[in-house]
Amino acid sequence: MYKDATTEEINIAMEAAWKAFHEYRNMSLKTRAEFMRAIGTELQDNADELIKTATRETNLPEPRLLSELSRTVFQLNQYGEAGERGKWLEATIDTANIDKKPPTHDIRKMLVPLGPVVVFGASNFPFAYSTAGGDTACAFAAGCPVIVKAHPAHAETSEMVANAILKAVEKCKMPKGIFAHIHGASVEVGKFLVMHPRTSAVGFTGSFGGGKQLFDWGNQRKVPIPVFAEMGSINPVFLLPEKLKQSCEEIAKMYAASITQSVGQFCTNPGLIIGIESKELQEFVSLLGKEIQKIAPAKMLHAGIAKAFGEKRNNALQQKNVTMVSSSDIATKENEGTPTIATTKGETFLANPVLHQEVFGPFSLVVSCKDLGEMVEIARNLEGQLTSTIMATDNDLTGNPALLESVKDICGRFILNGVPTGVEVCLSMQHGGPFPATTDSRFTSVGADGIKRFARPVAFQNWENKFLPDALKNENPLNIWRVVNNEVTKDRIQD
Amino acid sequence: MYKDATTEEINIAMEAAWKAFHEYRNMSLKTRAEFMRAIGTELQDNADELIKTATRETNLPEPRLLSELSRTVFQLNQYGEAGERGKWLEATIDTANIDKKPPTHDIRKMLVPLGPVVVFGASNFPFAYSTAGGDTACAFAAGCPVIVKAHPAHAETSEMVANAILKAVEKCKMPKGIFAHIHGASVEVGKFLVMHPRTSAVGFTGSFGGGKQLFDWGNQRKVPIPVFAEMGSINPVFLLPEKLKQSCEEIAKMYAASITQSVGQFCTNPGLIIGIESKELQEFVSLLGKEIQKIAPAKMLHAGIAKAFGEKRNNALQQKNVTMVSSSDIATKENEGTPTIATTKGETFLANPVLHQEVFGPFSLVVSCKDLGEMVEIARNLEGQLTSTIMATDNDLTGNPALLESVKDICGRFILNGVPTGVEVCLSMQHGGPFPATTDSRFTSVGADGIKRFARPVAFQNWENKFLPDALKNENPLNIWRVVNNEVTKDRIQD
Repeated sequence: MYKDATTEEINIAMEAAWKAFHEYRNMSLKTRAEFMRAIGTELQDNADELIKTATRETNLPEPRLLSELSRTVFQLNQYGEAGERGKWLEATIDTANIDKKPPTHDIRKMLVPLGPVVVFGASNFPFAYSTAGGDTACAFAAGCPVIVKAHPAHAETSEMVANAILKAVEKCKMPKGIFAHIHGASVEVGKFLVMHPRTSAVGFTGSFGGGKQLFDWGNQRKVPIPVFAEMGSINPVFLLPEKLKQSCEEIAKMYAASITQSVGQFCTNPGLIIGIESKELQEFVSLLGKEIQKIAPAKMLHAGIAKAFGEKRNNALQQKNVTMVSSSDIATKENEGTPTIATTKGETFLANPVLHQEVFGPFSLVVSCKDLGEMVEIARNLEGQLTSTIMATDNDLTGNPALLESVKDICGRFILNGVPTGVEVCLSMQHGGPFPATTDSRFTSVGADGIKRFARPVAFQNWENKFLPDALKNENPLNIWRVVNNEVTKDRIQD
Repeated sequence: MYKDATTEEINIAMEAAWKAFHEYRNMSLKTRAEFMRAIGTELQDNADELIKTATRETNLPEPRLLSELSRTVFQLNQYGEAGERGKWLEATIDTANIDKKPPTHDIRKMLVPLGPVVVFGASNFPFAYSTAGGDTACAFAAGCPVIVKAHPAHAETSEMVANAILKAVEKCKMPKGIFAHIHGASVEVGKFLVMHPRTSAVGFTGSFGGGKQLFDWGNQRKVPIPVFAEMGSINPVFLLPEKLKQSCEEIAKMYAASITQSVGQFCTNPGLIIGIESKELQEFVSLLGKEIQKIAPAKMLHAGIAKAFGEKRNNALQQKNVTMVSSSDIATKENEGTPTIATTKGETFLANPVLHQEVFGPFSLVVSCKDLGEMVEIARNLEGQLTSTIMATDNDLTGNPALLESVKDICGRFILNGVPTGVEVCLSMQHGGPFPATTDSRFTSVGADGIKRFARPVAFQNWENKFLPDALKNENPLNIWRVVNNEVTKDRIQD
């Protein structure tokens, strides 16, 4: 429907972004927040059309898309607000000390924006992780222009969201180049964007193959740039014995819902459940299977995802010593995904890397370990994950410190007695785990701390107060939290 | 003198580090700080021998090495203290809110150490950026074991420092594997260390060639790891007209000293000075030349560095339209470096990338621009730098906003009316600039914020207070600054 952008068109957009960067980064945090709120308003004003188009393009149900759109607006507002609070600037000041030998200089450090950020949206979140999603909101809050590569699976929705952003650009009198929307179904467009000399950072949400490729390109540039790719995971869940004894049915119901929510199309979908051989585990598997059977197959995001799900599901089921526990009715309609539970033994899982791979969709593998030692062994052999979950009583926790450590080691978010699906948008959120869950476990793509991905510190040495940026001035005109001579404070500095 | 470590020896050290990591990371921040102070004490107790050996190995004068050793001890103490203050943990808490729709979870995030860190020391700082230097101190403060690859140019000093660390390990009853010292003059040892599956991060200070190679290896691993390489820069200095008119002689003297300090062997050495064609600039060049002539050639760190300096200096001097202004007596003794000033025009500099390269040693190129526009053009065409300096009056600053922006864009530390040499060890320091100055401009290798290079956030969702790490407990037993429900506070949280 949309033609791929030409390299000439991309060059124009990137040069405009570079030019806009010099203006935008000097605009106040307040102005940035207002602009972000204005985007939210535009999105809300066009909600009906947006939802209609997204429903058609993604097969996601209307209520889900409505709540995702609200979340997108919430993110824009929240990151803008956090941007304005200015704590993320990490303003750090050491005043001169002429009594020291040798005397020390006045040095003041703060974060400054990196430059134009290229965003690759996710197919499974047409709003919250796409055109005006988390990466875009973080970049705008940081003071960076954004160039979005539209996801071809919802290019029309993306185009509409882009128009909402452009309207906000106009209404707020922002520099025009601050936002550009690029169509491109081909690999070449993506590569050209990542390799472009004006690109300063990349945000991506999607598959391992796609993310890793962008990451490699980013590192192979003459000037390497950070590529923040969130590439999903299987989000292991560890069922501890006492907990399972107490709440077998409750956990089965909870997880049947979590596994099948939005046809399992979440990066935090629990694709692996690990328990210890026992009557209770057998009962759990059987209950989970029954719950799953109640859930009808449903249309997945697009034909490619449905096909990949079918293939990976079947491949997992065909592995040696893997048994299908249950599956809801086999999908009969086009592009449907069939909720499926399989089971295997700990030693089989440990020996077969195929079973460690993500099956993106409503699929989960229950692994039965011969003992706790094997469970720890599995935790130690899993790849990096966005989340890990422990289902445990106090006794379970107290008795298994080695398991807790090993499970914490592999994840960015560590959940107790809950489900991994549902990623709250708040400052304490960590959505980013050890590789291959993401390319940089030191940053998050959800929550306002994600702003810091697109900034770097600059220290000003020996500058007069009047020439310093507001965040570093003696009188603290932005009224932000700073570290002054090793003390956290909002106080002004005596001249 | 020392044999290269075998892969077997390295494997043993790495496995021991991995084991020690599990113990060390759970030790209190206070214990870590005490251990770091104990290292400092050991170093001081062995100062005489250390200085003697380092003087012989590096040709650096005793007073310089004495002050470097003090700085090293100061770093260990300061980073340990900052570690203990716990602000670097970035503890961030959002308490559950059951009134929200849907209700929100209790989520608490903090930084946790990455794992074993491999440190490659610098030849020009046998103490402060080597075996017990900044990278090692940051890693220990973060809770990570350290494996040092000794610099072959001062392997004996390195061995002695390593012994001091091992003595502190023993005295403080630290897990043994927390520190290992590996000799290796070959590329293979370095590669094996970076590629080792137990290695979680790398710190490096040295040449572009070496650092970039480690960075590439780190990214080519099955599980990529962060490689923090500080690869030097030419630290441009911009002389603005009014300032030069007022303080020509003073600046010439200041810079002659800065260019030749420690035979110019600093990563912050000012290798490029940019002014605008004028009588004053001519006078400055002539004065700087005269000052330089007063400084006798001196022995450089080792034969390889002296040879490289000679070659790069001569290569720069042989470029078309580059004129030698002055040079102190030509070095006659082995391994000496001759202080040298050359000059060229702005257009020559812009057109010749050879002149943008670092000449590590006492060399500086003065570029004469035809006007301010050309000066801005040069700022925009320079590669990433550790530092940039502006010499300017208030009028100079007020009149040239575009220059200030462009100069800030290329550096990590932005100095007004000073010299770039001398990197203060304080929290506000940024020692890390856009590539190729360092591989990751978002982090510093000097100052306690360098600790954060070796840590990543983990969010704990829905954990009971008693099972949380101390940093995240309601009662704030560590008494650290935290962000609780978006407010910066040391207050305890009501149960």
